[in-house]
Amino acid sequence: MNEPRWDRLLLNATLATFVGDTPYGLIEQAAIGLHHGRIAWLGRVNDLPDAPNLLADVVESLDGALVTPGLIDCHTHLVFGGDRAHEFDLRLNGAGYEEIARAGGGILSTVQATRAASEEALYAQALPRARALLADGVTTLEIKSGYGLELESERRMLRVARRLGRELGITVQTSFLGLHALPPEYLDRRAEYVALVCDEMLPALAADGLVDAVDAFCEGIGFSREETRRLFERAKQLGLPVKLHAEQLSDLDGAALVAEYGGLSADHLEHLGESGIKAMAMAGTVAVLLPGAFYALRETRLPPVDLLREHRVPMAVATDCNPGTSPLLSLRLAAGMACTLFRLTPEEALRGVTVHAARALGLTDRGTLAPGQRADLVVWNTSRPAELCYWIGGSLARKIYVAGETVSRRKPPRRSPSAS
Amino acid sequence: MNEPRWDRLLLNATLATFVGDTPYGLIEQAAIGLHHGRIAWLGRVNDLPDAPNLLADVVESLDGALVTPGLIDCHTHLVFGGDRAHEFDLRLNGAGYEEIARAGGGILSTVQATRAASEEALYAQALPRARALLADGVTTLEIKSGYGLELESERRMLRVARRLGRELGITVQTSFLGLHALPPEYLDRRAEYVALVCDEMLPALAADGLVDAVDAFCEGIGFSREETRRLFERAKQLGLPVKLHAEQLSDLDGAALVAEYGGLSADHLEHLGESGIKAMAMAGTVAVLLPGAFYALRETRLPPVDLLREHRVPMAVATDCNPGTSPLLSLRLAAGMACTLFRLTPEEALRGVTVHAARALGLTDRGTLAPGQRADLVVWNTSRPAELCYWIGGSLARKIYVAGETVSRRKPPRRSPSAS
Ligand SMILES: [Zn+2]
Ligand SMILES: [Zn+2]
Repeated sequence: MNEPRWDRLLLNATLATFVGDTPYGLIEQAAIGLHHGRIAWLGRVNDLPDAPNLLADVVESLDGALVTPGLIDCHTHLVFGGDRAHEFDLRLNGAGYEEIARAGGGILSTVQATRAASEEALYAQALPRARALLADGVTTLEIKSGYGLELESERRMLRVARRLGRELGITVQTSFLGLHALPPEYLDRRAEYVALVCDEMLPALAADGLVDAVDAFCEGIGFSREETRRLFERAKQLGLPVKLHAEQLSDLDGAALVAEYGGLSADHLEHLGESGIKAMAMAGTVAVLLPGAFYALRETRLPPVDLLREHRVPMAVATDCNPGTSPLLSLRLAAGMACTLFRLTPEEALRGVTVHAARALGLTDRGTLAPGQRADLVVWNTSRPAELCYWIGGSLARKIYVAGETVSRRKPPRRSPSAS
Repeated sequence: MNEPRWDRLLLNATLATFVGDTPYGLIEQAAIGLHHGRIAWLGRVNDLPDAPNLLADVVESLDGALVTPGLIDCHTHLVFGGDRAHEFDLRLNGAGYEEIARAGGGILSTVQATRAASEEALYAQALPRARALLADGVTTLEIKSGYGLELESERRMLRVARRLGRELGITVQTSFLGLHALPPEYLDRRAEYVALVCDEMLPALAADGLVDAVDAFCEGIGFSREETRRLFERAKQLGLPVKLHAEQLSDLDGAALVAEYGGLSADHLEHLGESGIKAMAMAGTVAVLLPGAFYALRETRLPPVDLLREHRVPMAVATDCNPGTSPLLSLRLAAGMACTLFRLTPEEALRGVTVHAARALGLTDRGTLAPGQRADLVVWNTSRPAELCYWIGGSLARKIYVAGETVSRRKPPRRSPSAS
């Protein structure tokens, strides 16, 4: 027979394709054929071009189980030294800002611990965190630098990010976040540090192939619009896409800035105004919502979801996994928080961790189920997409495929998600 | 040799005993000996009475890992038919109360689905939920009836609860919650339904050995103080302890009522006032805090934690796992929510899911690590207790012992946590 055969055919699935405008792009009583790491065919079982066992080497029935694209966590700070559980404990015991700082808390404690950690130690600490995300369905993961704040430490973080991708067999996209915080040794030399980041660190790390995108923390307590612009100019010269932590605590018009550079995404956005939204809509910049930080910081100012909808800005949702403001180890829980806290619909939240998250990373080969897309899939223990947002915690992923191959489910982490 | 030998000795543990007033009752560089399902000995490794291999058949080093008592979820509605994910979806798509009711939402939809489900179906649906809780460290679980609201359906729920305990090898405590909602067929016959619950259902189910405690929903939209008192009188006659859903939406002085009957616990308590707190303190009634419902309903009224502290009322924390207001499948996450949302310290939250939760169930043989206690233990992938509350989601339990035997970790659920 000359019939093209597929590696694998999944039958009796409920596919949430996120293609088109129907709810979840749902196809019931569906089949999906995988070949050479890609989706070869999908549609209704009744429309299969031949008998299943003539079409694929392996045929599996899913009894109606939901299949979604592998989830995409498009904003994390997953690689870091130490953790901040002690600070969390101190704060809840009534310690104020100063006492915590004296006890070595705050972002600079993470910088210190990250600088002090070997590449091996950073890897060992990050691995269980990455595995936790994977166990809940994440097959593509963005990881930022930004706790090194010096060339060698930033390089170490990004190398660890790459290694996590290689060893777990998932895709890791890196973002260089040198403008995350001013390192203490530059306290009275801001301009020098910005120059170092733009003129030395970024070019060197880009030359090493460690930078997929460039990010910054544009905020009163972070870096100014002008400093951010300087970084974006350099990124443009190097041909690297940009994204930005914008409008989290105040409105510095960062979203408009990143849109001006055709940026992939503006992230956080609780204080985003309509002019920034219009600029994002024009530029096709994705709004990345981070409900984990909103929850952990007990914020009350909501991102402008209605206006984002009105201007048709695509919304993504991410964990923002980081030790200070969002120690969140489940993207599905982030999607649920986006519903409960930000009033996204389950469909918006799930498009936010699939198709729109892919776009926030500049990836066009994933985040939907369609012929030709990467065969990154999750088979869930339910047939209804809303349940992925509805259940808080628990273990819903039944089987995970990365490029058509099954990932052995839930290897339990052998070490703490933190350093201990 | 006549030396008494233990079944198992865990070495180099960090024990959070929750005994005494030191933080977490922590013992570092500790050992714990297990024998015949109980804790035979614990203390510093240096104080062991003999060489480890002379003391126990199995000796295991934990490399500093944290060991806590098995967690105790003292308030759940884990057994139910259907789920309410569709309602969650509708509500986030802007549907109002009436539209949801027309679409078959609300608690009565759960009653309908529960009544329609066979015992086998209820069991199959509840099992993955119980497994999810167990995977995150729960070894004792309270399960309420209250979605049947007729004798046979209530019995079926309680039988399923008992079966979950047997088949998972964990302890399940049952509470009869006949006064949960007025069933539709009694809409204009309230008194008749209350009489049915008190005079027929409770005695019959108690006679079957299916009732460990008696609970009610004392609220404007639930049952009055007088109706609740009638139930408590019957419970007293039958020698059954009582507990109460009290002061969740308004202050009906339910806490004082349950305290008057020497009740095990008053649960929810967002609207609890000082007189109720004083009554609870006098009676030794535990305050059970349920941050999952607070989170899912986006409540803003906090339970009076400072006053509870001041009057030394023990605070427990539970998932309230239920399909309508708290589809929460992790007790560790509930403890984290109690910190983040209710400002409990991590130590308070962890005492709330161990020693105080045991007390809320009237159990004195667990919830602490001490000689003679049941050997229900969790070994965690960290050495520091605060991390259990700090990490949001993820998988931190390394090994779980129930009565001294290891539970095979994280059997993945083969079915959805819901009906689908
Ligand atoms: Zn961030
Ligand atoms: Zn309840």
